[in-house]
Amino acid sequence: MVSKDKNVILVVKPYDRTVTTSSNKILLDVLRELEIPIRSDCGGIGECGKCKVILSRGFTIPFTSSEKRFFSEEDLYKGYRLACQVRLIEGSYEVFIPSESILQRYRSADIGFEKVVELLPAVKKIFVILPKSSLNDVRADYERIADVSKDFINLYDVDIDIDVIQRLPEVIRANDWSVTIVVWHNKKIIDVESGNTSNKLYGLAIDIGTSKIVVHLIDLVSGNTIAIESIPNPQASYGADIISRLSHAMQSNDNLKKLQEILLRAINLTIERISLRANISKDNIYEAVIVGNTVMHHLFLGIQPKYLGYSPYVPAISRSIYLRAKDVGMSINRNGIIYMLPVIAGYVGSDALADAIAVDLENCEKPCMLIDIGTNTEILLNTGKEIYACSTPAGPAFEGASISFGMRAVAGAIDQVFIYFDSVTQDYAVHYHTIGDVKPMGICGSAMIDTIAHLYRLNIIDNRGRFLKGIKSSRIISNNGNYSFILAWSDETEIGKNISITVKDINEILLAKAAIVSGIKVLINEAKLSFADLQNIYIAGSFGTYMNIENAITIGLLPIIDPKKVLFVGNTAISGAKACLKNINIRKKAEVLARKIKYIELSAHPLFNKIFIDSIPLPTYSNMINKS
Amino acid sequence: MVSKDKNVILVVKPYDRTVTTSSNKILLDVLRELEIPIRSDCGGIGECGKCKVILSRGFTIPFTSSEKRFFSEEDLYKGYRLACQVRLIEGSYEVFIPSESILQRYRSADIGFEKVVELLPAVKKIFVILPKSSLNDVRADYERIADVSKDFINLYDVDIDIDVIQRLPEVIRANDWSVTIVVWHNKKIIDVESGNTSNKLYGLAIDIGTSKIVVHLIDLVSGNTIAIESIPNPQASYGADIISRLSHAMQSNDNLKKLQEILLRAINLTIERISLRANISKDNIYEAVIVGNTVMHHLFLGIQPKYLGYSPYVPAISRSIYLRAKDVGMSINRNGIIYMLPVIAGYVGSDALADAIAVDLENCEKPCMLIDIGTNTEILLNTGKEIYACSTPAGPAFEGASISFGMRAVAGAIDQVFIYFDSVTQDYAVHYHTIGDVKPMGICGSAMIDTIAHLYRLNIIDNRGRFLKGIKSSRIISNNGNYSFILAWSDETEIGKNISITVKDINEILLAKAAIVSGIKVLINEAKLSFADLQNIYIAGSFGTYMNIENAITIGLLPIIDPKKVLFVGNTAISGAKACLKNINIRKKAEVLARKIKYIELSAHPLFNKIFIDSIPLPTYSNMINKS
Repeated sequence: MVSKDKNVILVVKPYDRTVTTSSNKILLDVLRELEIPIRSDCGGIGECGKCKVILSRGFTIPFTSSEKRFFSEEDLYKGYRLACQVRLIEGSYEVFIPSESILQRYRSADIGFEKVVELLPAVKKIFVILPKSSLNDVRADYERIADVSKDFINLYDVDIDIDVIQRLPEVIRANDWSVTIVVWHNKKIIDVESGNTSNKLYGLAIDIGTSKIVVHLIDLVSGNTIAIESIPNPQASYGADIISRLSHAMQSNDNLKKLQEILLRAINLTIERISLRANISKDNIYEAVIVGNTVMHHLFLGIQPKYLGYSPYVPAISRSIYLRAKDVGMSINRNGIIYMLPVIAGYVGSDALADAIAVDLENCEKPCMLIDIGTNTEILLNTGKEIYACSTPAGPAFEGASISFGMRAVAGAIDQVFIYFDSVTQDYAVHYHTIGDVKPMGICGSAMIDTIAHLYRLNIIDNRGRFLKGIKSSRIISNNGNYSFILAWSDETEIGKNISITVKDINEILLAKAAIVSGIKVLINEAKLSFADLQNIYIAGSFGTYMNIENAITIGLLPIIDPKKVLFVGNTAISGAKACLKNINIRKKAEVLARKIKYIELSAHPLFNKIFIDSIPLPTYSNMINKS
Repeated sequence: MVSKDKNVILVVKPYDRTVTTSSNKILLDVLRELEIPIRSDCGGIGECGKCKVILSRGFTIPFTSSEKRFFSEEDLYKGYRLACQVRLIEGSYEVFIPSESILQRYRSADIGFEKVVELLPAVKKIFVILPKSSLNDVRADYERIADVSKDFINLYDVDIDIDVIQRLPEVIRANDWSVTIVVWHNKKIIDVESGNTSNKLYGLAIDIGTSKIVVHLIDLVSGNTIAIESIPNPQASYGADIISRLSHAMQSNDNLKKLQEILLRAINLTIERISLRANISKDNIYEAVIVGNTVMHHLFLGIQPKYLGYSPYVPAISRSIYLRAKDVGMSINRNGIIYMLPVIAGYVGSDALADAIAVDLENCEKPCMLIDIGTNTEILLNTGKEIYACSTPAGPAFEGASISFGMRAVAGAIDQVFIYFDSVTQDYAVHYHTIGDVKPMGICGSAMIDTIAHLYRLNIIDNRGRFLKGIKSSRIISNNGNYSFILAWSDETEIGKNISITVKDINEILLAKAAIVSGIKVLINEAKLSFADLQNIYIAGSFGTYMNIENAITIGLLPIIDPKKVLFVGNTAISGAKACLKNINIRKKAEVLARKIKYIELSAHPLFNKIFIDSIPLPTYSNMINKS
């Protein structure tokens, strides 16, 4: 029965996927089912023209008016179609997805762009079979190990932890004098295990975000990521943003201790879960590489972050730190090691450094920029000669705080909005996408960008975000002159209320945008470059998972740039941490890079205030020409 | 009134002491009051002839019959006198104490021979004044310290403990940006302190003995020992000797934990006391050097010592170990370091190594031997080319166990015995000395040696320790043929009973002696030397504080050797530990020495059993000739 229905054969290029399916389906839906990352800004109503594909042998399927609007005769002749407009009929097709139609995004905020990294971890295992002791050979247990393994490592130069020695006599006798030595960085014995355990060698990469902790478990024998877990940062109950956490910690060392404690508990819980899921023992996790912003870095270490809150915002320490897991209470192997990547400055943490490592920012041939948009936005610019970094206190507007229906990019959040004028109803229509495909509860940052861009393009608001007078629409509401635009009607929402965006919301976003843009401009200015010199802009962080580049350019969040140059790289903080876990030379590279980066303190920069004020309005066409 | 009585002026050479005292006093008593370490084996009754002095301008004081017995006319003409026979009359004298009359002993078991050691401790302090942070200088607190101190030490290669970083922001701001950095071994920052604390730099040397823990507090700026404390080893309640401790620990890891715990508590209590006494802060104690026998070493570290109890008696680890004080719970500076000297074998611990370091055994020009007599006796022999070590399970006889009235060398113990035939009473008379000058409660090892030597010399016992028949003396008691000899009458003692030595006691001592002697002989044999080749025999440990060399030779405990070659060096375990604390090069020397020493396992030695049996009897004259 089922196979009878499957009368459509589709080959998807360049993915080389072949699928048989039933006729009468929309091509976009088939591609979505195949998890082909195809763009569809308007959600599949033929209004955005982003789901362009080239369909061979598809001429029998009629063109829609939408397609005729977006393609020339010549394009149509070449086979260009909008995937959302093609209703498949029986037959065999080949569809090619051009690069501009591919969403270069990471579905999950827990992963990011990863390069192949040669395995050279800090921890190695050496399996040896020991000669047994006798009255003619009364060497101590440990000396026996040292002697037999001297071809692999000089254990005379090595530190040993006390509990390794404590267990040694039993361990070496438990498996007929065969043991596996776990050596860290050729200078410390982390463990000695009975028998041959050399295939059990794991490490963790941990990204401590202000809102979320992401943990990857890596098999350091194969290099594979064998499990991923994440957990909300429980410090959130002491404030959504880093400044409120900072304020709380500053009040007393007890508060600091509490913040450290709950963070650690969440990390340990995640480690528990991830090792259960991967079915491995926590004792075989020997190292963890940790990244995070500087406040998270300090709170994790139990350092009073007070002075991060006062000018000149200096960290207690910026270089990389090796710690014993037990000193901070992290539940991996008793003598496991924690590697904290260096932080760059008070508000440019090791997460930003990890971003740079993940995309190899240092080795761009031409100028490249990396922007990690979050509560705090970190911007790094490699001019080809020097690397600059700054941080902008963008405020939590993009994360939903201070926005009427603002929320984080979690299930229930409208994350994509497409507004158009419906000629049938003669009113503005809205297509939106909600995360988790549930009824909407609010809107997240990417949807705010979409909304403002569309309202601006449709001339509903002016470049200062003010609603133009005299526009007739059921969606535009004025409450004593305070305008708002309804995105979702109450009957569509989970909350039973209209979800709308207000003038005040738009202003908040414009201020947040101005903060980020000022950071970008100050760095470009400092480097004596123009935006046209940029070869790539990497957008890191979960924000990029949903952000629409064209809309970001429209509202001026990104400079006018060929959208192909903008790469969404996802959670590169975790990718960079993983690279450092897998290869100690990459750590060294990161340490050198951290010291090389020139930090620009925006609040002390003479041009910052002027640039900030100038960056608040939406770009006008003439402005856009000037800036490009 | 007082000064009127002081009509005697006495100059004591070579001590260059001058004293005025009253006439009618015995010269020996005056010397004792001056704490001149003069010998007096018989206790001052003119019977031993050991308190020889040369008295100038003393001819007016009549010679006694005792003096005439011990000195030739010529000697008397030169001024030779017995200090116990000279009753001073008004006048001015000069008395010279010849070296053979000087007791080369350490009064306290807590100190030992010390050489001058150049100061080169592992911990150093660096005082720096930091540039303050500003918007133009946003370096992290720690980087600021690293940069300013880079002329002294490369902090880029240095480890930092987490709690140092935690306190750093407050510490550097507490004293106007001036700090003192405490660096250990140029590779670890132990602490950063506010202001200039560079004159507060202390270390501990700790000797963990089976019965007693001795702690010295050393000022590492001056090199001076500023306080000494000792405390009984509380593990004694689990057995007086190491074998019973071992057995207890072997029964369960809980027992082991308990033994470790009470030891640590005693050490921490002693550290508390010593720092109070010296009026210093424990936080300024940055390092502790610890020595002890291998069982104590393992128990301190919480290592299950089980395998020390089974042949082939191998330790868990023999090399030196650096530990963080907090890992073992020792209450010195939070990040203080513990240095455990290497042990040589299962029954030759780091205390024996420290002995060798203290007397510089390694650099003897001619063959030298070191004997540390205790429950377990360690013997080291430097042949000039090689260094041998062995350990003899002497048993606790010398410490009083299994002896009728045996006790340790503590207050109330008879520690010196002198037996002679009193021609007036026509009976044997006994002079004894009791530790603490209280009524006797028992006898300790040195007095047992004295007793057996005298009984043998006086032909009361034969060379097998059997009482000869037909000797008439009120002190010789036969109980069904089981003889004993009364040393102290009941009315003289604290316990209200006669204190005596029995045939069985004598046999126990002879067995213990045989064990030690066999060790000595096996080493001499292994090295293909004879006793005459020995330039020096160092007697280490508290036993030497009271032992009479001639008597030890008489019973055969020591070979026939010029008594001047026998040097009592006291608690050299603590001295060696101190030397290692003061100078890191001496540690390295100790580490090299530990690996160089050839350990001889007596129980596996083919000659041991025969030598042991042969060593039980007291040496006969012909034997003594043969052996010398």
